[in-house]
Amino acid sequence: MTAYQDIIEKIALEVKPLLQEGKVATYIPALSRISPEKFGMSVATVKGELFTIGDADEKFSIQSISKVFTLAMIMDRIGDALWERVGREASGNPFNSLIQLEYENGKPRNPFINAGALIVTDLMILENKDPLQDLLGFVRKCANNPEIGFDAEVALSEKMTGHRNAALASFLKSYGNLVNEVERVLDIYFHQCSLSMSCVDLSRAFLFLANGGTDPRSGKMICGPRQAKRINALMQTCGLYDECGEFAYRVGLPGKSGVGGGIVAVMPGELVLTVWSPGLNPSGNSLAGMKALELFTTYTARSIF
Amino acid sequence: MTAYQDIIEKIALEVKPLLQEGKVATYIPALSRISPEKFGMSVATVKGELFTIGDADEKFSIQSISKVFTLAMIMDRIGDALWERVGREASGNPFNSLIQLEYENGKPRNPFINAGALIVTDLMILENKDPLQDLLGFVRKCANNPEIGFDAEVALSEKMTGHRNAALASFLKSYGNLVNEVERVLDIYFHQCSLSMSCVDLSRAFLFLANGGTDPRSGKMICGPRQAKRINALMQTCGLYDECGEFAYRVGLPGKSGVGGGIVAVMPGELVLTVWSPGLNPSGNSLAGMKALELFTTYTARSIF
Amino acid sequence: MTAYQDIIEKIALEVKPLLQEGKVATYIPALSRISPEKFGMSVATVKGELFTIGDADEKFSIQSISKVFTLAMIMDRIGDALWERVGREASGNPFNSLIQLEYENGKPRNPFINAGALIVTDLMILENKDPLQDLLGFVRKCANNPEIGFDAEVALSEKMTGHRNAALASFLKSYGNLVNEVERVLDIYFHQCSLSMSCVDLSRAFLFLANGGTDPRSGKMICGPRQAKRINALMQTCGLYDECGEFAYRVGLPGKSGVGGGIVAVMPGELVLTVWSPGLNPSGNSLAGMKALELFTTYTARSIF
Amino acid sequence: MTAYQDIIEKIALEVKPLLQEGKVATYIPALSRISPEKFGMSVATVKGELFTIGDADEKFSIQSISKVFTLAMIMDRIGDALWERVGREASGNPFNSLIQLEYENGKPRNPFINAGALIVTDLMILENKDPLQDLLGFVRKCANNPEIGFDAEVALSEKMTGHRNAALASFLKSYGNLVNEVERVLDIYFHQCSLSMSCVDLSRAFLFLANGGTDPRSGKMICGPRQAKRINALMQTCGLYDECGEFAYRVGLPGKSGVGGGIVAVMPGELVLTVWSPGLNPSGNSLAGMKALELFTTYTARSIF
Repeated sequence: MTAYQDIIEKIALEVKPLLQEGKVATYIPALSRISPEKFGMSVATVKGELFTIGDADEKFSIQSISKVFTLAMIMDRIGDALWERVGREASGNPFNSLIQLEYENGKPRNPFINAGALIVTDLMILENKDPLQDLLGFVRKCANNPEIGFDAEVALSEKMTGHRNAALASFLKSYGNLVNEVERVLDIYFHQCSLSMSCVDLSRAFLFLANGGTDPRSGKMICGPRQAKRINALMQTCGLYDECGEFAYRVGLPGKSGVGGGIVAVMPGELVLTVWSPGLNPSGNSLAGMKALELFTTYTARSIF
Repeated sequence: MTAYQDIIEKIALEVKPLLQEGKVATYIPALSRISPEKFGMSVATVKGELFTIGDADEKFSIQSISKVFTLAMIMDRIGDALWERVGREASGNPFNSLIQLEYENGKPRNPFINAGALIVTDLMILENKDPLQDLLGFVRKCANNPEIGFDAEVALSEKMTGHRNAALASFLKSYGNLVNEVERVLDIYFHQCSLSMSCVDLSRAFLFLANGGTDPRSGKMICGPRQAKRINALMQTCGLYDECGEFAYRVGLPGKSGVGGGIVAVMPGELVLTVWSPGLNPSGNSLAGMKALELFTTYTARSIF
Repeated sequence: MTAYQDIIEKIALEVKPLLQEGKVATYIPALSRISPEKFGMSVATVKGELFTIGDADEKFSIQSISKVFTLAMIMDRIGDALWERVGREASGNPFNSLIQLEYENGKPRNPFINAGALIVTDLMILENKDPLQDLLGFVRKCANNPEIGFDAEVALSEKMTGHRNAALASFLKSYGNLVNEVERVLDIYFHQCSLSMSCVDLSRAFLFLANGGTDPRSGKMICGPRQAKRINALMQTCGLYDECGEFAYRVGLPGKSGVGGGIVAVMPGELVLTVWSPGLNPSGNSLAGMKALELFTTYTARSIF
Repeated sequence: MTAYQDIIEKIALEVKPLLQEGKVATYIPALSRISPEKFGMSVATVKGELFTIGDADEKFSIQSISKVFTLAMIMDRIGDALWERVGREASGNPFNSLIQLEYENGKPRNPFINAGALIVTDLMILENKDPLQDLLGFVRKCANNPEIGFDAEVALSEKMTGHRNAALASFLKSYGNLVNEVERVLDIYFHQCSLSMSCVDLSRAFLFLANGGTDPRSGKMICGPRQAKRINALMQTCGLYDECGEFAYRVGLPGKSGVGGGIVAVMPGELVLTVWSPGLNPSGNSLAGMKALELFTTYTARSIF
């Protein structure tokens, strides 16, 4: 079916004028140098098709999208024990807010806001001898691409400027909700955020979530079908910071965004859709990317609703 | 297919021990007299099938479930103009909180928390000469049941004790986000919440949302397909107070609950599922009802994710 | 001693350029018509001296300054029982905020924010057959002026626009922290705020607080010495909305302000100082009035610190 | 005058039963070993008299009381420039809360909550080559005791467990409101809190604040008279965490407390009163100490009000 190719080509044209409207993230110096003109999109279906447009093969910093990988690894490892340390409700606050954390005595709202992701990283360190190497192995397996790696420069850049995340980690520690040392957790966290992947990599790596937990190409089970549904539900509820409702309303798919400008969306049973455009809206989500995804579900008349 | 009948019978047995664990809402005196032993469940499919168990034909106070009806009416009437006065993000706070309203200068987070629903009621008064009569007509049409009505005793009971809602309405008024008089808005609001319907009524009345906006029995279009998707998305995001994430995780369907103990859930393209059990959990959602819905999606292995 | 006369004359000249900088309160229509050019100041000493400048004899709406009178009446009547229903800490929030009230389950921070003053009014109704008449009697006695009265037009004007106060009262009621009907409490509250008094009236009426509870002219005890100290302490802590710290730092006296532009300050053992200038700063305190009081304690090198 | 001696002896007897009611701070391990039976009190007058009772000569960890010394040093050095980085209003929140800091974009409410004190420490580092040595010199001069020193064990103990302060410092840094490195600021901060002084030391060291800025014994000016008043005003407004109103109401003097169980109170023009009792109330203030100070102002019938 070439239908998806036509659609993403049409979308690429339509969102072109929006590329200049977003604002590239500047708080991580290494990210601020990316051109806002970049735009890529890719669709991978459970049947094995792949459709791409623009810079779909160029690697970018996936940032918070990495939270889905670490969450999948930890849910597989410790199951519901995770929920003793982190909730699963939308936060209704910016991704790096400390307010709710204090009101709720150090239990982050969900694993996709930064505080919650730090808990997941803390667990990764407890459960894996070499958490970064294991994460890399997992992502490479999901994406079927052994060349995926971390971007050391980005990781270092975040470390130098990540005072807000340092505050979150120390705050969690003060509540007894962080086992490892703050320094260690931050180091792993900044590295995982620095994963460098392309739209094609991400579309492929997320296919197991569109296919009941099993990679449709290799036939390998990445997680159980129930776990896959739950991860999709969590993305739906809290994958786009304080724009989850907006995303559900306009796009209607579970998804996860990162400040690098990437957004991945899952249509269960069918496909994974990834878009990359570095210019962000005030909520920290790719401005043109949001529009591209909205157009896709409008043109295909498909959504989970 | 009798499969659904077997499943709901099995579920009814399983949740029986939970009926005593919930707490019947006491803040509305007329509701506090309902027996916590009541339990009903009904499934209506887009193909016209109906499956019921227990007290599925007994009328109860649908309370906040009515917010879906008024929202559907107003979205149909004024479209996106609605979003100038109310947002569409999860609130992460109890349904009657005033905190976020103040931080966000009188714009409620979404149309399903009380403050947002009062805005919708305000619009109902502006757009309809006789809002209650029009609402009744709409609900009767959706449910195909001309006997549905308001429960005057419940409406009065809420009025006498609804100081929190009065606070919300006055607060909205102080921000200039309420056009009509506080008294008038509250009067209509308490009446709409007092709608008395059975599980069967609700399953039928919500079928248009499972069928792209069109009632599958009558063939009448209640709203456009895009509108139906959006209402489902809004229920997914904010239909269960501060348990939306929990509901997405455990049940995986768009849904709306009320403090009368009812919950309606929509499986797009397939069916509507309604459960009623008056005992509530601390978040104000039916305790056994939540479990019943979770079991349904587990046993059928179906959800939107 | 003519020293005070010289000082207030000097001050009147100095603050003249500031009169245009403040913004007359517009949310009460009847107040918005007052000229921002008005300026009055009066000093009454415990020895019986009186010094005045400008419009010190013109009556204005004392608004929140009335909260000191009702508090003094209720503390005298019910003593420490008051503190079961209201706290005595600075709020750190605007005078009409509902946020803290919700976080603290309906117990207002102190009797000088609006929520706390509504509690005091509720108690006034419980303790007095005719609370407004009794208040009037009390104020006339304190000020030794039988002509002091309410301004019915202002009271009505507040009632028509006082949605925020209505929200506060309903909110208190929802927490069970308001005994009388919301309507009744608001009616009394808006009337008490409409008290019309001059700088001279206020300086005289507050003299008992500078003199250990006893009116130095009549020799009548208005309250005990300990009570007088406590009322001064409460004014110091919470008399100027969210500028109490600013006022302590710059002026260094217990004081109470109103949105009518009046501020009364007490120098225990010595004098009462009242200033009136209708232009307000963003916190709702008289802009020129704040400066005038600061200059007074600077020029006299006197403060409680 | 032996009057004060009689009074503090009477007070020591009266508060004895309260010593067991407080809870010694446990979050700093080195403090948790102090016996709750300790009780000391001392009065130093501007005329040179000294009255003591109990353990008034035993050194204890002054903790937050040190914030008055660093504030006095910095106000003297940079004047009103301080207020660009920190406010001067009561916080109405616990001393280590991060909530207000986020709502107010990284500007702490006042210099006596931990966040504000960290700003002062940051300035100390900028303004002094050897901030700890300079602080020590200042305190020794004020107290006229060259043997005052830091308690290295306490400082280390705080560092190991001070995750909340680390969170505050990183949070300030993320807002650009901290110039030096987080590690460095915390190191100085924990040391300054570890100052070890007796009641007598503190009463003497604070005498300049009761005497218009000049040490009455040595005749040396520590700060100007206006500065002394302002520091007293700041202590009045924000010296006792979230019990400032309580302290003003019950005691009626400017004061500063520490979690080591010490409280210093200033009666301008007359005396300084210090009490030490390690058992704390839930707000972190010495339980018996609060009572002792209240009894003192009751028995002497003196306060600033």
